[in-house]
Amino acid sequence: MADKIYRVNMNDLSFKIEEVPQEWMGLGGRGMTSTIVAAEVDPECHPLGPNNKMVFAPGLLSGTIAANSGRNSLGAKSPLTGGIKESNVGGTSAAIFAKLGVKALIIEGIPEDDSTFYHMHVTRENVTIEACPELVGKDNFEVLDAMEEKYNKKVAVMTIGRPGEMKMLISNISVRDPKGKLRSHGRGGLGAVMGSKKIKVITVDAEKYKETELADPTKFKAANKVFTKALKENPISGEGLPAFGTNVLVNIINEAGGLPSMNFRSGNSENAEEICGEHMAENIEARGGSTTHGCHAGCVIQCSQTYNDDEGNYLASGFEYEMIWAFGANYGINDLDLIAKIDHLMDDLGVDAIETGVAFGVAAEGGLVEFGDGEEAYRILAEEVANGTPIGRIIGSGTGNIGKLYGVVRVPVVKNQAIPAYEPRAIKGQGITYATTPMGADHTAGYAVATNILNSGGYIDPLKKEGQVELARNLQIASAAVDSTGMCIFVAFPALDDPACLPALIDMINARFGINLTGDDVTNLGKTILKTEHEFNLKAGLGSADDRIPEFMKYEPLPPHNVVWDFTNEEIDAFWDF
Amino acid sequence: MADKIYRVNMNDLSFKIEEVPQEWMGLGGRGMTSTIVAAEVDPECHPLGPNNKMVFAPGLLSGTIAANSGRNSLGAKSPLTGGIKESNVGGTSAAIFAKLGVKALIIEGIPEDDSTFYHMHVTRENVTIEACPELVGKDNFEVLDAMEEKYNKKVAVMTIGRPGEMKMLISNISVRDPKGKLRSHGRGGLGAVMGSKKIKVITVDAEKYKETELADPTKFKAANKVFTKALKENPISGEGLPAFGTNVLVNIINEAGGLPSMNFRSGNSENAEEICGEHMAENIEARGGSTTHGCHAGCVIQCSQTYNDDEGNYLASGFEYEMIWAFGANYGINDLDLIAKIDHLMDDLGVDAIETGVAFGVAAEGGLVEFGDGEEAYRILAEEVANGTPIGRIIGSGTGNIGKLYGVVRVPVVKNQAIPAYEPRAIKGQGITYATTPMGADHTAGYAVATNILNSGGYIDPLKKEGQVELARNLQIASAAVDSTGMCIFVAFPALDDPACLPALIDMINARFGINLTGDDVTNLGKTILKTEHEFNLKAGLGSADDRIPEFMKYEPLPPHNVVWDFTNEEIDAFWDF
Repeated sequence: MADKIYRVNMNDLSFKIEEVPQEWMGLGGRGMTSTIVAAEVDPECHPLGPNNKMVFAPGLLSGTIAANSGRNSLGAKSPLTGGIKESNVGGTSAAIFAKLGVKALIIEGIPEDDSTFYHMHVTRENVTIEACPELVGKDNFEVLDAMEEKYNKKVAVMTIGRPGEMKMLISNISVRDPKGKLRSHGRGGLGAVMGSKKIKVITVDAEKYKETELADPTKFKAANKVFTKALKENPISGEGLPAFGTNVLVNIINEAGGLPSMNFRSGNSENAEEICGEHMAENIEARGGSTTHGCHAGCVIQCSQTYNDDEGNYLASGFEYEMIWAFGANYGINDLDLIAKIDHLMDDLGVDAIETGVAFGVAAEGGLVEFGDGEEAYRILAEEVANGTPIGRIIGSGTGNIGKLYGVVRVPVVKNQAIPAYEPRAIKGQGITYATTPMGADHTAGYAVATNILNSGGYIDPLKKEGQVELARNLQIASAAVDSTGMCIFVAFPALDDPACLPALIDMINARFGINLTGDDVTNLGKTILKTEHEFNLKAGLGSADDRIPEFMKYEPLPPHNVVWDFTNEEIDAFWDF
Repeated sequence: MADKIYRVNMNDLSFKIEEVPQEWMGLGGRGMTSTIVAAEVDPECHPLGPNNKMVFAPGLLSGTIAANSGRNSLGAKSPLTGGIKESNVGGTSAAIFAKLGVKALIIEGIPEDDSTFYHMHVTRENVTIEACPELVGKDNFEVLDAMEEKYNKKVAVMTIGRPGEMKMLISNISVRDPKGKLRSHGRGGLGAVMGSKKIKVITVDAEKYKETELADPTKFKAANKVFTKALKENPISGEGLPAFGTNVLVNIINEAGGLPSMNFRSGNSENAEEICGEHMAENIEARGGSTTHGCHAGCVIQCSQTYNDDEGNYLASGFEYEMIWAFGANYGINDLDLIAKIDHLMDDLGVDAIETGVAFGVAAEGGLVEFGDGEEAYRILAEEVANGTPIGRIIGSGTGNIGKLYGVVRVPVVKNQAIPAYEPRAIKGQGITYATTPMGADHTAGYAVATNILNSGGYIDPLKKEGQVELARNLQIASAAVDSTGMCIFVAFPALDDPACLPALIDMINARFGINLTGDDVTNLGKTILKTEHEFNLKAGLGSADDRIPEFMKYEPLPPHNVVWDFTNEEIDAFWDF
């Protein structure tokens, strides 16, 4: 049976199955979610009102044996940025959606009775929606346990904690990973959208699914072999990431002078040695735990890890560079174990590591907390954010809003979303991506760090303007396409350096669907996605004045290179000339 | 001596006098401030950063004997709306600036040493800037007293309280009125801009000023006589407003079903009888006080008042409809005396009545306070806002931001500024003004209530769309011109109904400067101002998607007429076709 669109209306808790329109057949992941959001959501609607929609869509290759194809996309109008959002995640949902034949799950409306929350259960050709008062006020791990108990088997779980119920803008949607830990649709405050629709948890039943059909299984297998080899032989995806996790980046980016520290005051952190990936790996070695862990089945990179305390007790998994940077370098906590405790708490609450960590930096700037006071950050998250106290609401509103509350000018956001762990002034290609991506400041939208710092795909001097706009444009086009396949961002490294990698990826898509995409087709898909998203944002009121790096970076030189953000508006706006 | 521009740079506390460029000679008030802001301020700058500027400018007729000409304009990029702002005020500053020959006072930069606040003193051909640590943390009345003591004479005083020091977005700039009470540059969070520049108080010395020169004193006097007569003989400006103050509107607007109540849930308020102007006038009669009080010398309307408690002790002055509506109808306090106490406290703190009152409505919606709990509102203002506690920062951030913190969808703002006391759904012409004025939701920008409700300038059915866009456009063009003269908004009533009124106003301008403006010239001035402001906003990122009434008004019918906001985007955007 051909894949279908599952559509749920929360107004009356109804459900229907729809055929996939012909013109959407070739879409998956981000291509699917952005197309549907652009087609069906009024760009001027209130993101937490009845006219926003959530769209889940697995990647084109999800559900197959293709390595690293297990990312699931979620699209909506973001309540944080006010623009279109796609956020993809590992975990088990992409493969199960794909195997159930769900091309997209569209959730619209808001229940008339908003006195409780609902549990949505997706099975083959059906969706049930039931009130779940017993789960209201619970956080993620308790919800996970309840779902495991309820179904007594592995179901995909997508859930929000208390911050999501309270529609906080730092809230995300957490997804069960293969080991029962959590990954997140992290950015853009999408947990608040789920909260606004009064959905506490979505489960997707793995039973009765079929193996994904392949038009040409032989060709598919051969291509996957080439693709997997490329992933494993690349020095970054095959060695650095498995050995040290994403946190290998702390020392690299610090050395480059681009590690934002103390709320983007410097590109170097005094805490680098304490929080770096090498130190983390030492701890893991000494304390038990594991340096490798895949966020989804079929991952051959295994960049995640399990991190224990010094008595060997579990502290955190999925303990990523961005989290460690945000709380370690940018907010100034010099204790990796405490950062791990905070990470686990944030997994349980369901809040975005980047938005929340950078929010603490601006809160420190405004005087609400003190730089480096990790115990207080933990307490605020556990007591204030979790319970929606006034302080909790402040932190929960995210970086940009805290800046407005406290009259702070040094506010590192683009389109009101916090800037991640790479300084725009010192890694200028990445800055162009932050400025121009329709997603708000987002490193994954076009990871210019690869070519600015990691010598992947050549080298472009990170401190100079030359070539950065073109680099960011090419990477964003490629990323939009890759985000449609279900592949994780790290396939970018072999894709940039190994000429066999991208053709193998395209071959897998062709063998899956029995089509004949060329490299140009894939590039055109990426371009179309970007333009669709950009058009939505323009209608939503995010124009060129929103494609900007914060003004303070234009007049505050960043140590150690003492560089400023020096692109003219015209240079930035030329990004869209394609 | 010709009028000059006084320019202060807070970076180095320097001052210089500049000639007025020829093309700015015919400008005053809003025409002057908006022209200078558009010419000198980067629309993309952070409004609280070093590149924003404050521009004060008296009206073209300020400093003369023209009735009601004592309004002073202040322009800047607003930290509340992110767009251009002009806010004008009565008090004594306009006349003194004009008589000193100050065409505009431009304040730019931010002090390098931000450890204290400064007192700026403007005299003939000089400005001194001195640290005033003794005033830091003081509120407005104490600052007023200190200035009276310091100078032992009447100086114009413009000051911010603690919320302005803390750069809260509800903060305004308070101005001494002729009786030593306060008026405000109320809207757009301009107090935060003054706070960001570390200016606590500006005084303007009335000594050594000259009488404003008139090119044709005889013609001027004759025209002023006609103009004054028109003001006095108009039933609204000559009778209703002097008798009951602006608060005469509670019953009128309630009866029209357009009095926003309980956070814009209804167009009728249960509290109308308790809070209306007639009840207020009874109290004043019974308790002493005064129903008439002018906000500036030369006012013949005297719409303000002095309001005492039931023991005859002073409670408030400048106790306006908007304040009484915001706290009485929209937040639900049914005790006029308590609202008066809150009004006085807010005068002292220096926060905008509309933004703050509507903020309490949304805070009630979010669960931070309860509708109608006036004692708690008083306490929050006196203890939390005044001291910048987390709750204080929340209220202090204004209506739109509170909505974001609490995930509220029913948030009555346009361009993030709170909607005033006239319901867009039930007074549709006023809604078009809110949507389109470059100022963010602002009733004074084009007071369509006049023609929708008060039968001034004809009558256009407030519940129907027909004719509203044209009405709002004509009124906004006229208001932009009137805001340039130093005249108060209420000259609109005779101007709309008495054919002798506007020509007399134009005659006064001609007689003042020895020029020959026609009615068309004045209309063109208004158009040019609006377009200049609109152009600034477009560059600042406020485009047509920001010219919108909140979405909930499109699907929530408003009792008692059960009307929704039903303009299409195209109908609204046609406003700018001129």
